Amino acid sequence: MTPIRRLVLDVLKPHDPSVVTFTTQLGDLESIEAATATVIEVDESVKTLRVTIEGENLDLERIRAEIEDLSASIHSVDQVSCGSRTLEDPWL
Amino acid sequence: MTPIRRLVLDVLKPHDPSVVTFTTQLGDLESIEAATATVIEVDESVKTLRVTIEGENLDLERIRAEIEDLSASIHSVDQVSCGSRTLEDPWL
Amino acid sequence: MTPIRRLVLDVLKPHDPSVVTFTTQLGDLESIEAATATVIEVDESVKTLRVTIEGENLDLERIRAEIEDLSASIHSVDQVSCGSRTLEDPWL
Amino acid sequence: MTPIRRLVLDVLKPHDPSVVTFTTQLGDLESIEAATATVIEVDESVKTLRVTIEGENLDLERIRAEIEDLSASIHSVDQVSCGSRTLEDPWL
Amino acid sequence: MTPIRRLVLDVLKPHDPSVVTFTTQLGDLESIEAATATVIEVDESVKTLRVTIEGENLDLERIRAEIEDLSASIHSVDQVSCGSRTLEDPWL
Amino acid sequence: MTPIRRLVLDVLKPHDPSVVTFTTQLGDLESIEAATATVIEVDESVKTLRVTIEGENLDLERIRAEIEDLSASIHSVDQVSCGSRTLEDPWL
Amino acid sequence: MTPIRRLVLDVLKPHDPSVVTFTTQLGDLESIEAATATVIEVDESVKTLRVTIEGENLDLERIRAEIEDLSASIHSVDQVSCGSRTLEDPWL
Repeated sequence: MTPIRRLVLDVLKPHDPSVVTFTTQLGDLESIEAATATVIEVDESVKTLRVTIEGENLDLERIRAEIEDLSASIHSVDQVSCGSRTLEDPWL
Repeated sequence: MTPIRRLVLDVLKPHDPSVVTFTTQLGDLESIEAATATVIEVDESVKTLRVTIEGENLDLERIRAEIEDLSASIHSVDQVSCGSRTLEDPWL
Repeated sequence: MTPIRRLVLDVLKPHDPSVVTFTTQLGDLESIEAATATVIEVDESVKTLRVTIEGENLDLERIRAEIEDLSASIHSVDQVSCGSRTLEDPWL
Repeated sequence: MTPIRRLVLDVLKPHDPSVVTFTTQLGDLESIEAATATVIEVDESVKTLRVTIEGENLDLERIRAEIEDLSASIHSVDQVSCGSRTLEDPWL
Repeated sequence: MTPIRRLVLDVLKPHDPSVVTFTTQLGDLESIEAATATVIEVDESVKTLRVTIEGENLDLERIRAEIEDLSASIHSVDQVSCGSRTLEDPWL
Repeated sequence: MTPIRRLVLDVLKPHDPSVVTFTTQLGDLESIEAATATVIEVDESVKTLRVTIEGENLDLERIRAEIEDLSASIHSVDQVSCGSRTLEDPWL
Repeated sequence: MTPIRRLVLDVLKPHDPSVVTFTTQLGDLESIEAATATVIEVDESVKTLRVTIEGENLDLERIRAEIEDLSASIHSVDQVSCGSRTLEDPWL
């Protein structure tokens, strides 16, 4: 199976755990090389994050399970890049 | 025949299979080096993806067949780049 | 004669042949190193493409003949770059 | 634990200490390689800063304590990047 | 005299000769290394081109004479760069 | 103390001394490697400059004293970057 | 004295001499490595140019005298960069 190199996820997270705890816990997953969370919107009880993850062979189900363990949820998958290298979308 | 180096496709996909399954299955095709799907629009029963694919010699008909096997369809071809290298459009 | 290095053409194409067939047939012309077609507009019976072509010594008349053989036509020439190298327009 | 490589913080700071004192004191923390504060808004008694911090292994709690020692407070965390390298958000 | 390295000219050209003939004839002038014409506006009897020319030592009067031999005229000079290298305008 | 690598200052300057005298006098300070002043606004008796200064170890108080010796004043500090290297703000 | 590396000048010039004569005459001054004039506005009797000049050690008074010898005048100085290297303004 061709490996997933990058995922961009729209994540809903309660205020606890914090963005830092959330991102570093996520980054602890074995297959993840680097993770960046940008806060997009802050509502009363929830934050919307755009989470970019890169690695040699990402496993979305383990990432989803970890995100749910952290009391958050994937609202949508915004971008998936797979293959022998990361490929940029020329329209972005 | 001059090889196709990049295709940018506008794809309509039902919610199942997921964007990740769709992109990695597509990326498994022999001629594909890397594939990136960006979600452009989410409607009730369908997602619109912009799918960028690069490889040494892409075969659109095999890509189309695979996309249809994945219950999705190519709504339109947005860009085709072929020849001895990938060539950027200077207006984009 | 100074060689043409890049042409950017505004092309009107009926829906048949497809953008992929059109671009790869065009790319098969001897002098063309790489060709990229971006779809700009889709009307009922015709597509408007911006076609970027690079090569060591492009021949517009052979390119025009090939485009017409493919049932399409050059609506306008948007950019021509010639000389010992490709030169970018600093205003673009 | 995967190391934090970059933090972008929205900070509220009274006019005293100055932005320069604030940023260099913060930059003195052991784990911080470089810190940049950009002034975003100036109100009667408070300044809003966007503070970007990079290092090999940042410690938000020590950073927060230092910021509070400097009479300022973190209004929100705007971005966290962690892992074996800094990862850019492709949408920014 | 310090050599001219780049000229950007606003040129009015009747529909005949074509943009390709115009640009390659111009590019044939001895001092010109590369020339790029971008079509800016198309009116009933005339096209407006932005013509960018680079060379080691450009001669505007020979370029103007050649442009007039090609039935076109320089409407205005938009940029001149001269000296030991090409220098970009930091505001563009 | 962690060294200041870049300062961006909003400076109000009377018409005399000139921007050139002002910037070169400022650039003469020992710790300054390079200084760039961009004129942002011109009012009847005063000019607003955005002054960017880089060096290995900038001293704001000496810079402020020099600016005041030149009859100008720092209206605000817009950015401070300190540490072992200059760090860009990812939102700018 | 710290050397001036770049000047950006807003220059008013009568239609005669031409932009090309003006820029190359200016570029002939000993200390100037490269000069680029971009035409910003054309009025009935005058053109407004943004003139960018780089060199190892620019002398504004000699440049001003030369500009006045060429029947033009410096309307304003838009940017001055001095020191051991050219420094970009991060807000531009």
